Amino acid sequence: MQRDYFLALEKYLGTDKRVDLNEMLSELAFNDDGLIPVVVQDQVKKDVLMVAWMNAESIALTLETGKMTYWSRSRQALWVKGETSGNTQQLVSMKIDCDGDTLLCQIHKEGPACHTGNENCFYLQVNRDQSTVSFVCCQ
Amino acid sequence: MQRDYFLALEKYLGTDKRVDLNEMLSELAFNDDGLIPVVVQDQVKKDVLMVAWMNAESIALTLETGKMTYWSRSRQALWVKGETSGNTQQLVSMKIDCDGDTLLCQIHKEGPACHTGNENCFYLQVNRDQSTVSFVCCQ
Repeated sequence: MQRDYFLALEKYLGTDKRVDLNEMLSELAFNDDGLIPVVVQDQVKKDVLMVAWMNAESIALTLETGKMTYWSRSRQALWVKGETSGNTQQLVSMKIDCDGDTLLCQIHKEGPACHTGNENCFYLQVNRDQSTVSFVCCQ
Repeated sequence: MQRDYFLALEKYLGTDKRVDLNEMLSELAFNDDGLIPVVVQDQVKKDVLMVAWMNAESIALTLETGKMTYWSRSRQALWVKGETSGNTQQLVSMKIDCDGDTLLCQIHKEGPACHTGNENCFYLQVNRDQSTVSFVCCQ
């Protein structure tokens, strides 16, 4: 059970312990569709660019090729980011969270991360005081 | 249908258009459990601290109180971050992504974000070249 696996690892936080990568990948808490969310962060600016999903195969391909490769839920197919748009993303680092149910990838990107042409996908800004949402560009 | 709603909004990117917040919240693409993932980012350092989940009620409470309030999937209950640990998170800004299926919240935090006592939950660092995972602390 994934929860037990990751709980057992907590004692190694801050130590030099290393765990086999394939062992840990096999314990990831994929959802019922076999997917795990991936937070994609610009390595330099540290902006959160997008959140996408990976299955076991797309994780393996991303690690092997260095090209961010997601699972497209709308197309139900592997999706090498930028394959058609040219807006590729190169993996810089991958981290797994404490309970093995989310990935964080820092990347180097060519062009915008969002299909709209915006630099990132989070352009809908909540204005709490006015109870409105505004559209922010290139931030 | 949420996808159509958010697609229709794309043309306003970069304009001064404002949309009613409650209207947009009612169109969010919650999953089958009524939940949406929330990326939590430190407002100052821009580190990604954790990913948690919200339902409609916890979004409303977060916006109303300014205290980050999630839905705990393990406890199946509302979870005001820090209510027991003291490690609270204050909402600074909330953004919604282009297709309405993820939130990004920048926060001000008191104490560590992770239940392990680490500053953030992403302390399992993949070492691609060695096919191992190491434990990083306080980064």
